Order: sequence, then structure tokens, then C-alpha cells
Amino acid sequence: MTSFGESHGTCIGAVLDGCPAGLELEEKDIQKMLDLRKPGQSLVSTQRKEDDKVEILSGTFRGFTTGAPITMIVWNKDQNSKSYEKLRTEMRPGHSDYPAYVKYKKFNDHRGGGRFSGRLTATHVMGGAIAKKLLKTTLNIETHSYTCQIGKTKMKKQFNPIEKTIKSTYSNDVRCPEENTAKKMKKDILQARKKGDSLGGIIESITTNVPTGLGEPIFGSLESEISKAMFSIPAVKGIEFGSGFTGSEKFGSENNDAYTYKNGKVVTTSNNSGGILGGISNGMPIIFRVAFKPASSIAKIQSSVDIKKKSQTKIQVGGRHDPCVVPRAPPVVDSWVSLTLADHALLSGKIKTVL
Amino acid sequence: MTSFGESHGTCIGAVLDGCPAGLELEEKDIQKMLDLRKPGQSLVSTQRKEDDKVEILSGTFRGFTTGAPITMIVWNKDQNSKSYEKLRTEMRPGHSDYPAYVKYKKFNDHRGGGRFSGRLTATHVMGGAIAKKLLKTTLNIETHSYTCQIGKTKMKKQFNPIEKTIKSTYSNDVRCPEENTAKKMKKDILQARKKGDSLGGIIESITTNVPTGLGEPIFGSLESEISKAMFSIPAVKGIEFGSGFTGSEKFGSENNDAYTYKNGKVVTTSNNSGGILGGISNGMPIIFRVAFKPASSIAKIQSSVDIKKKSQTKIQVGGRHDPCVVPRAPPVVDSWVSLTLADHALLSGKIKTVL
Amino acid sequence: MTSFGESHGTCIGAVLDGCPAGLELEEKDIQKMLDLRKPGQSLVSTQRKEDDKVEILSGTFRGFTTGAPITMIVWNKDQNSKSYEKLRTEMRPGHSDYPAYVKYKKFNDHRGGGRFSGRLTATHVMGGAIAKKLLKTTLNIETHSYTCQIGKTKMKKQFNPIEKTIKSTYSNDVRCPEENTAKKMKKDILQARKKGDSLGGIIESITTNVPTGLGEPIFGSLESEISKAMFSIPAVKGIEFGSGFTGSEKFGSENNDAYTYKNGKVVTTSNNSGGILGGISNGMPIIFRVAFKPASSIAKIQSSVDIKKKSQTKIQVGGRHDPCVVPRAPPVVDSWVSLTLADHALLSGKIKTVL
Amino acid sequence: MTSFGESHGTCIGAVLDGCPAGLELEEKDIQKMLDLRKPGQSLVSTQRKEDDKVEILSGTFRGFTTGAPITMIVWNKDQNSKSYEKLRTEMRPGHSDYPAYVKYKKFNDHRGGGRFSGRLTATHVMGGAIAKKLLKTTLNIETHSYTCQIGKTKMKKQFNPIEKTIKSTYSNDVRCPEENTAKKMKKDILQARKKGDSLGGIIESITTNVPTGLGEPIFGSLESEISKAMFSIPAVKGIEFGSGFTGSEKFGSENNDAYTYKNGKVVTTSNNSGGILGGISNGMPIIFRVAFKPASSIAKIQSSVDIKKKSQTKIQVGGRHDPCVVPRAPPVVDSWVSLTLADHALLSGKIKTVL
Repeated sequence: MTSFGESHGTCIGAVLDGCPAGLELEEKDIQKMLDLRKPGQSLVSTQRKEDDKVEILSGTFRGFTTGAPITMIVWNKDQNSKSYEKLRTEMRPGHSDYPAYVKYKKFNDHRGGGRFSGRLTATHVMGGAIAKKLLKTTLNIETHSYTCQIGKTKMKKQFNPIEKTIKSTYSNDVRCPEENTAKKMKKDILQARKKGDSLGGIIESITTNVPTGLGEPIFGSLESEISKAMFSIPAVKGIEFGSGFTGSEKFGSENNDAYTYKNGKVVTTSNNSGGILGGISNGMPIIFRVAFKPASSIAKIQSSVDIKKKSQTKIQVGGRHDPCVVPRAPPVVDSWVSLTLADHALLSGKIKTVL
Repeated sequence: MTSFGESHGTCIGAVLDGCPAGLELEEKDIQKMLDLRKPGQSLVSTQRKEDDKVEILSGTFRGFTTGAPITMIVWNKDQNSKSYEKLRTEMRPGHSDYPAYVKYKKFNDHRGGGRFSGRLTATHVMGGAIAKKLLKTTLNIETHSYTCQIGKTKMKKQFNPIEKTIKSTYSNDVRCPEENTAKKMKKDILQARKKGDSLGGIIESITTNVPTGLGEPIFGSLESEISKAMFSIPAVKGIEFGSGFTGSEKFGSENNDAYTYKNGKVVTTSNNSGGILGGISNGMPIIFRVAFKPASSIAKIQSSVDIKKKSQTKIQVGGRHDPCVVPRAPPVVDSWVSLTLADHALLSGKIKTVL
Repeated sequence: MTSFGESHGTCIGAVLDGCPAGLELEEKDIQKMLDLRKPGQSLVSTQRKEDDKVEILSGTFRGFTTGAPITMIVWNKDQNSKSYEKLRTEMRPGHSDYPAYVKYKKFNDHRGGGRFSGRLTATHVMGGAIAKKLLKTTLNIETHSYTCQIGKTKMKKQFNPIEKTIKSTYSNDVRCPEENTAKKMKKDILQARKKGDSLGGIIESITTNVPTGLGEPIFGSLESEISKAMFSIPAVKGIEFGSGFTGSEKFGSENNDAYTYKNGKVVTTSNNSGGILGGISNGMPIIFRVAFKPASSIAKIQSSVDIKKKSQTKIQVGGRHDPCVVPRAPPVVDSWVSLTLADHALLSGKIKTVL
Repeated sequence: MTSFGESHGTCIGAVLDGCPAGLELEEKDIQKMLDLRKPGQSLVSTQRKEDDKVEILSGTFRGFTTGAPITMIVWNKDQNSKSYEKLRTEMRPGHSDYPAYVKYKKFNDHRGGGRFSGRLTATHVMGGAIAKKLLKTTLNIETHSYTCQIGKTKMKKQFNPIEKTIKSTYSNDVRCPEENTAKKMKKDILQARKKGDSLGGIIESITTNVPTGLGEPIFGSLESEISKAMFSIPAVKGIEFGSGFTGSEKFGSENNDAYTYKNGKVVTTSNNSGGILGGISNGMPIIFRVAFKPASSIAKIQSSVDIKKKSQTKIQVGGRHDPCVVPRAPPVVDSWVSLTLADHALLSGKIKTVL
């Protein structure tokens, strides 16, 4: 997949190459998932209104993929670049402004974060929606991510059965499957918003029916590939598979997952490995947690520098921003998992090149 | 870099392509770093004795690299495959045995973990030693990793000044720069060992003098590349940059790093970003933490399956194993950071192709 | 570069990633080169009329490249898919129809050749125009290709000085720098056209001011990379560098290019190597010849099969086709040379990442 | 595949990654093919004697491939570097000396051509022998290349049935399946040798039983991939598929291959396309011709430059060289075809990852 476009440019889009011929695909398949990350849906996200109507420009014919690259595009509408004029020289703390300025000099499109904007994650969802459908159609693979922590508010139980979680996640604005926790999370976000501040959080992801044997030892370990994908999402600062950082505190005898037979199939009685051993999927659900930092664009006054004047300055970031990006991120996490697994399933020959 | 070899095969080795011509390089440059991960040095690691004497087979001429692929090899000596015979069909919990069996069937070289063995990390160090020297020589980049947690025993202070840490890390067997903490850690490991059990831990890594602007937005973010590299190391289950998972609990106003000028250079007053913003290095030290699970090979009896008999079984892993792999891992983490940064420094033109 | 779109789909386009920030770039820079391959300009090419007006959708800001992916698009207009209905099951000889049918089954977009159409070369020119400008701006590299043979009509002299050739090539419809030869070529094409037949030909390409040292030994030889690029162009069936196939008939003493000094610079007195030795540019002009087969779509009746009826059939290809594609190919050859050299110049650090 | 080593270094070798587990493989499988390109077998090749005994260092277990990287090595023995001392500053015409000097400066291992030596083709044969066996075992694909032209002496008939050709090719020193032509070729080479000169030639390659549908449109066309591979061989300066350059002189009605049914299978009545249409294999034999320039190392006195003295000089290349490299090249061409097709057959899922 390639993605293109800028936050305040003409459009954003993606080109997905390598999707097998014969997958039934219409714009609504992609739109459905795009809508889940669309801004302007509630007070927990930015008030920028974008229709985000996707158009498929290539790669399908009579409702099916052809095997050729699939190009998808969303035309930008509600951009407002005025508030960004000062930001050409005043560097927003926690943002890509400064390294981007050093890397691209004055040529960087700074408006709305340009290519570094979280808005670009919409293009990842375009490709991800197709990968997700492909995996579901061919291997019955189900990927589901949800908000499990906002600031210090955490879900009570981790990694519940996926069927239950899928149903409840999108019943609320913060996309947390526990109803009461969701309410508390929303309150926290609105409070931060009121103060001109922002909050971070954690997303959990679970993928079921993954065939055993995906991933390559050492250089193409499945954890390598998934983590690489996750850090493509702005604001992600950490990832852990299975018992992760907590597992580091355990004894081997506690952390090892015992094998047993269940309905004639080899399974483990716990899943501290997160479904991956030696970089290879072991047939158990792939589970991991992704840490998102609090959004860096905040209304509060911050200390920074003006690189033109070469002096200290105070900065107050204007524009319309998310007080917390986490509630919009589950479909983005789903997308990157799906893109990664689809690549490996295709390479291993588990998905045929014509369906 | 490509690596090859198996734990109990003829040899292990690496081919490093892309190193610029003109770097002064002798076997001792690599040997020094290999020795830091060598087994059999104290009771905290496996008693398997390996000289691990590296030979350079190609790519140097009269003491300098030529620009051609550099091949390095270590001949295996002290392997003992007998204890592995049963493991052809009995799957060790927490190990790659089962997914490897499904992926490669009976053709998998199971002896000592084959290609999945931690022994292969010696080949990563071969390439890493060269990358580290290249970065130090050309850009004065300094990478240093150390044990900051074993089981539940943690260092008191994180991310101290690198100069001090470098000096103290290798003064003890567990490679922790805090002397007293190191003693406690060693005690914990020996205790686990006595019980036939193992311990996990966390390694912190700090890299200074990284030029601003390394990394590519979205698909080649520096966090993506570093995390991908880290998960190539067996037993790694998590990674976090800067404030990481803890940062997810903070407000944006707390977590954002304020900019200021110091000696005419733009710096941040804190380093919650871990030196990377928008996937691009911002000139501050790159800092991250890597979670290692407790070694899966333990002497304790565990529940497992025999895939030949298709039945439940009890398993007790023989062979000589590390009660805790963390103390041997700092040079491996150093290696992968160096390999990753060297790639980006070369691609960005910051290192010339002839020195 | 990625390209997308189909001959009779909504649009065709390209995404070029990796172009350094700071290159002055407007649509007219690309349009100029696109116009040179535009169909419908004379009787020697197809009568399909396409404006081929390019739009830049991303990657530029205030007239300069930003370092982000550059997306370019041309909306399709004059497609006429009716003539292609029969071709769903009747395979055109010499065309990709049959292997595409086997590869993608009924899902292949067969209309106008779909993704296999020569029309897609317009997307290569989009990217190529940028690469050509980049090379000219930064390294003064000049690439120029022209028709040197149509059917059996050949230019009298090969590889004339580039300055002269550049001026005369586009003064005629067949893009041959020798005026009289061009007239004969045009006559040959029109005659073939009249008979419902087509003609092939050869294009010569010359690139000057290439820095010595581009290309990598063995796996990334410059000849490997250029030839790989050329065979991306439909109808190309052969390539030879320097003395090529003729050189195989010579003695080493005849074919070796002697070195000498000219204005303090090492040059060769002949250029049988085509400017590449050991896969590396040697500073002399890079010269090569590319063989195009006669266009496979002809009006004459041909023997073929109907894969639905599984029977022999006679086929007469309708639609509007080029009696000879060679006259439209010089900008396409220019484009692929430029894209390949730009990649190598960037990788070798000879072009900076910000201009 | 990666290759390493230098002509006069310790060893040469190759690492082949991606070979499926379960292929029966012993050293003799590789040795057999290596022996076909071994030097010192007759007066038509260099008198350097090399045993070229291959050792497999990794990737096999109990006589079968394991799925891990396969490392193969040959230790150098009969190198004689003395004759190369002068060549550090005197550039051999037609050789890579000069561009390599500019690219790697004084660090280049110039002895015997270093990494640019034809000797490195032995490493390609190591990998190629495995790929060839894999293709034969799994898909019954047969690749066979032979000398069809030396200097001006050509075979009378091109592309005879493969069964017949295979039998007769290796019955003579020049590896030409026509007995009388082979005699004339040998005479030509020995004459050139006597004069201290060298000869070039052409190799034809034919591959049967290739499944229809290998190759990807545009960027991964099968012609792109094969030509890229061929130009990895030193001395190759041209390639043409099917009717190639001759096809450029024909009319479409002559050059198009008519389809018909034969035993219920779609075939073409001629093979001017060389078995590839639109970059995709069409099920007919893949045929192509590769042009080799005359070996650049000749005993005759040549004009050149001394880059240290910055002056004109006369040079006479010492050492032991091939008067014609073509007779040793057929197994090298076979190897690269096999490696390329194996990659595509694996990617398309036509070869399983465990045999």
C-alpha cells in the first residue's frame, strides 16, 4: 500500500497493490469502516467536519477486484489553513513540526500537519477495509480493536471473547466495550477538553482464526511486522504482545502457555504469548496493546521556539483538534493488523491469487 | 544484513551488505562486542561454553572495508544435541517448536532451537558491531543499552547520562549500571535458577548525537524501523519509546516536550517523545525500553502435547539454558539500533559511500 | 513509483515517492512531456483522442515539491469499450489477453487492454518527467531517445551528438532525427496501416553527464536496472547496451574502449561499453537500443481461439490502434531511464534530500 | 539470494533464503552444476585451476532443506595476486577497474577483479542449482542454455527441441549442441587465444513447462525480471526474447503468434513472443538470447591511463584469463533463469512452502 495527500491539500488517498482478483468490492465496503474514524461525530473528537466520501478510481470491474492496483480517494473539503500561518516558524511541542522543518526546510507543507496529520490515517483505513474483508472472506479471520484505557481510566477486564466485544464497542463515543468505563472515559475527555488539554490512552486488539505458521523467523517476525505497522500511526509510542511488559516480571513457569488438545486441535491454556512464538503465529488469537500519547495539539499556552527569529516564544495551538485521538483509532489499528496479516497470508500461499 | 546458521549446525554467520568502503575493520572490532554476549561467563547464563571466535571471510582488504558484502562466521563447537531428541515431537511451552513444526513439518532443524535459537543473536551482533563502529566513526553516534529490570527488581532511576552509564554497566554480570540493584538482580536470577525456573526483564537503550531528520513519515518511521528490529530478538514482547505506556496516562500539557535554545541549538526540556516525533528523529537522545519475557526453556515439569502420539504429556526441558537472557541482551539491542540507524543515515546521505 | 488505472476506467495516474523537497514543479512541467506521447496527433498513431491533461493531487506546495508522495492523474475521456465485448473470450494473438485471462480469470478488466494497455505508459511519463527535471536541475544529466529504425528502414548513423539530435527529433511525426529517413519511415507506417497491418522498430537512447560510479555490482547493476525498467514498456522485446549483439562478434582488442585523458578527465576513445562497465557507470554517455515488436492489434484477420467455446476461431481486432507504437515511445524510454538514474543518484547521495 | 567473496579472497559463497522446506539436497546436487562452469578444463578457458568443491554450511538437516537460509561456500585456492599489483593504478580497458576505483577509491579489492570477477558467477550457480532442482522437482520445469554463437560462427538452427539439445550440449568444450559448429567455434577461440585476443558470443536459453500466469504487469514483468538477472552476469551486454531485434523488422501479421488448441490445451503455432506476453508467461517455452562481449582481459598491448600518475600508458594484462567466457556461461544463465522463475513460482503460490 502507498498513501498520498496532505491534511489541507486537494485530497487524500491510497493505492493498494497485490489484492487478489475476484474479491467483491464496492465503495460502501470501505465507507463503512471509514465512517468509524470520521471526525466531527461527537464532542470527544475534533469539530472539523469531513464527509470523507471515498471513491474507487481503479482496480475494480463490475463489482469485483481485478488484481490491478486499487486506488481510493477522498476529496478534502473543510480545511481551514489560516490558523496554521504562524506555525511555519513556531514549532508546536510534541508535534512533527520541528523535525519536519529540519528535514524538508521551508518546502514542508505545514498546513494542518501536512503529510504528518492524523487525517492521513483515513488512507490507511481505505486499504485496511479491503484487507479486512479479504481476510474475513477467505480465512474467516476476524480483527477487532477497542479502547481499553483513556488517561488513567482502565477497563476492568482485558481481552474478553471477541464476539461480545464486537457488539458493544461501537455503542458509545469512546469505543470501549465496557459501558460504565466508557462513560467515565468520556467524562475524562470532556474535562480535558474544557481545560484546553488532551488525553492519551491504550487500544487493545484481538484477531481470531489466524492460521498457524504466519511470519518468518528473525527478519520478518510477525511481531516485527505488526509493530512496524502500528508505529506508522501518529501518536503511537508503545506496543506489547500478550503479557508484554507485565510478563517481564513473571517467572517462566508462570508465563509459559501450556499446550493441550481441544477438539483435536492443539491450543494453549493461557495466551501470554499473544498468539505469536518465535515470530510465528501459533494458532491462538493474536492479542496486543498499543499506547497512544495524549494529542500534542492543545489550546494551553506552551513554551517553544521561533526558528526564524531564533528565539524563545509562547505558543497556543489554534485550529480544531481532538482532545483525545484514541476513540477514533480502533479502525486504524484494525486496518494495519489486517494489511499486515493479508500480506503474510498471501505470501504463504494461504490466500489464492484468484478467488 | 542476512544471517544464517543453526544452534547445533556447522556454524552461524552473517553477511552485511551496504557498508561503505574505507571503514577500518578487523576481527577484534567485532570480537569485543561478541564477547559481551558470550555464554558461559557466569552462573546467570547458560553453561554451554562457546569460544565464539569470529572470522571475517569477505569484504575487507588490508584492514579496511571495500564496499563489498562482509561475511562473518563463527564455527559451532560445544553443541550437544542429545537432549533434544525427545523434542522432535514434544512441544516445549513458550517456545517456537510448535509453530515451527506446523510451518516446516518434520524438516525443521529442532536441535537446540535451530534457526530460532537465541544463539543466532550472535550473528546480529556481528553486523551490529560494524554498524556501531560506522556510526561512531562518522557521526559520533553513541548507542548504549543496559538491564534496567529483572523480574520485579527495577533500577531506581531511568535514563541517566550516557557517559556514566557506559562505565558502570559492564562492571557486573547482569549489566545493570546501578551497583546495588545489580546485586539484587543477580540474587533473583540465581534463586530462579535453583528452582529450575527463569526470569524476564527490561532493557533500556539510549542513543546520543542522532542527527535530526532521520526516518520517513508513515511507512518508514524511525519507531517502526527500530521496533521491527527489536522484535527480531527472540523473547522480546514489548517496546515503548520515551514515556511510552506511562505517557498514555498523562495530559498533553504534561507529556509535550517544550522547546528551548541551548548553545544556539534547538532542544527540548524533557524527552517524553524519546527523541522521535512524527517518525522522525528530533535531535534529542533516542530512548526506549524493551520487554523480555522469561526464558521459555525451564527445568520445571510442564504440561504439553506430543504431536506424534496426539496426546497430552508432561515435559521437562533438558539441555543447558539461560535462567535469564536479559544480561546477555544489551549488546544485541545495541546491534539492532545501530543497524537500523546506519541504514537511515546511509539512505539520507549523512554517511558518504566512501569514507 | 506506483502507477494505477486502466485504459477504459475512470482515470490513469501515478504516485511518485522519494522525490526530494525543493524541486520547482508545476503541471506544465509534466504536461510538456506527456504531450509528446499523446495519441491522435497524426496518422502514424491511433485516432483515439485524449486530452491527457495532468493534475497534480499531492506532494507540491506553493510550486515546489515537499518531499511527500506526488500523485498525478489524467481522467479518461474518449474510451469506447464496445469494440471490446467480443474480446472477453476471443484471445487476440500477440496480446496479453490469454495469460491475463489465465492469471485473473473473468475478473480481468479486458476493456482496451485494461492495465496492460499501452495507455498506461502515460503514467510512466508522469513520474519520468519529474525524474528528468530533477536530474537536469541537480546534475545536468540530459536524456534523449529517438526512433532509429521502423521495420527495415534504419537511420544511417547511430548515436550522433546529443545536442544536434535533441533539436531534430521532434521535427517530424516519427521522431527520427534524420529528416529523409523519417519521411521513409512515415511512408512505411502509412502503408502498413492501409493494409490493416502494423510495424515494429528500434529506439536509441543516449544520456550524458552521468556521474561515474552509479550502479551496484551484481544485484543492482545499472544495466540490470535499466533493462528491468525498459521491459516494463509493453511491446519491448530486446535491449542492448553499447555495441551489444554486434559486440559479440568482435575481438576483445576491437571491442575494448581505450582510456585516455581529455581536459584532465578520464574518457574512453570509443563507447562500445555503452557507458557501463561491471554494472557501474564509467562517466561516458549511457547508450542503448530497445527493440519494439510490431503492435499486436491489427485489423487483418488472424487465427485464434475462443476460450469459452473452447474452439478455433478467426478474429479481426476492432477499436482504434497504433499502426506503429514506436513514434510515441521516445518520451516513455526517456522516462524510465530518468526514473532509474534518479533512484541511483539519490541512493548514492549525489542528489541531496532537500534542494 | 546474496553472494559474497572476492576472486582472490578467502572464499566465495552464497546465501539462498526462501527455499521451501523438504527439498532433498546434498552437496553433490550443487557440485554437478558447478563443475560445468569450472575453469581449467580445456584450452578454451582460463588455466587457473580451482577445485571449486562446494560445502553446505547451513539450511539442510538430514539431507533435506529446512526452510532456513542455505549457505554454500567454496574456499579459494589457486589465486595468484602478483600479476595484479600494477593494476592498482593502471586501468584495464573494458574492465570495471576504473568505475570501481572512482566508486570505492583505493579501498577496492582489485586483485583478480575482486567482487567484479567472473569467478563470482560460481556463487550464482550455487543458488541456481538449488532453484533448478526445486523447479524440476515441483513443476517439472526444465531450463537449458547453450552456446549458439562464438564471434561470427553461428549455429545453423535456433531453438531446437530441448530434449535433443540437452543431450548434445555438453559433449564438447564450447557447449554448442551442433557438433560441427562446435568444432569451428573451438578453432576460432584457440586462434584468438594464440593472438592474445578474446572472443564474444551468444547464448540461447530455453525453458519448458512454465505455468501460464507467472510475472506481474508493468513493474514485475517476467521479461524485466529475467533481463535484470542476466545483466548481473559480467560481460552480458544484450538480451532479446523470442524474435527480439529481428521481430522489430517484421509486420504484426508476421510476428503475432496464432493461437490454436493442441490436446485440449491452448498453444501458439509460432513462438515469436518467447513465451511471454504483457510480461506474463503464456505457457509456451520461454526462449531468449543473451549477448556476451569478448572478455576484456587480453594479452595484447592496449592504450590506457595510469590514474596515479595521471598520464597515458600502455597496458598488457597478465594473469590467466579466459579467451572466451561463453563456453562456461550456460550453467550461469541456467542459474539466473531458475532463480527468477523460482521466485515467481513461489510468490504465486504454485510451489508450496513445505514439499
